[in-house]
Amino acid sequence: MNASAISRGIILFGHGARDARWAEPFERLAHKLRVLAGPDTRVSLAFLDLMTPDLPAAVAAQVAAGCRSITVVPVFFGQGGHVRRDLPLLLDACRTAHPAVDIRGAVPVGEDDAVLDALTAYCLRQLAG
Amino acid sequence: MNASAISRGIILFGHGARDARWAEPFERLAHKLRVLAGPDTRVSLAFLDLMTPDLPAAVAAQVAAGCRSITVVPVFFGQGGHVRRDLPLLLDACRTAHPAVDIRGAVPVGEDDAVLDALTAYCLRQLAG
Repeated sequence: MNASAISRGIILFGHGARDARWAEPFERLAHKLRVLAGPDTRVSLAFLDLMTPDLPAAVAAQVAAGCRSITVVPVFFGQGGHVRRDLPLLLDACRTAHPAVDIRGAVPVGEDDAVLDALTAYCLRQLAG
Repeated sequence: MNASAISRGIILFGHGARDARWAEPFERLAHKLRVLAGPDTRVSLAFLDLMTPDLPAAVAAQVAAGCRSITVVPVFFGQGGHVRRDLPLLLDACRTAHPAVDIRGAVPVGEDDAVLDALTAYCLRQLAG
């Protein structure tokens, strides 16, 4: 990989679980993003608990790869304590560790109306099946 | 509500959290489903932990309302222990309690390709913003 070509990063931040299979949809999501976002965008996963890397490690790796702008997307349905309390503290620690990098936290995926529409369509298909 | 008009139910099964705001996307999803599924489909929420009702209570309420076919959709991204171990036990207990009712468990929402596409599109919009 040519690190000098990387200018921005996106980190998919999930809860984590004991079962490795739990992360499969996150890996599929990361793959789809890599295809669509193009070679100048680095796509990584990070986890709050039970899986690695954690968010500080994922951010540090993107910075080392040349990212100067990093967007952290919480792959959570709802805004509970993990998103409203734990994540801001983690983001602040990352900003302190990398003051020259623009590190932004996005709204959780479950707040997005188009995501909810896709979930609704999936549920309807289960009813019909 | 005219219970005799209800013939089927769908239950959105989520993890639950201490923070009541966590459930908001689940409530929005249930609302969207009620609008699209029509009056003969009962839509309920149920939670594994920390929130009520639990799955047996949600199933019992739908059976009492006249549902003879109930689809349980795990609103989870990944198939970890909650979906692969806890949920089948809960479903079995519900089937034992209501032997005349067809109770089906769906694949978790995070396994659906259209849902992943919507998540991907959301992530890309966060990059552009």
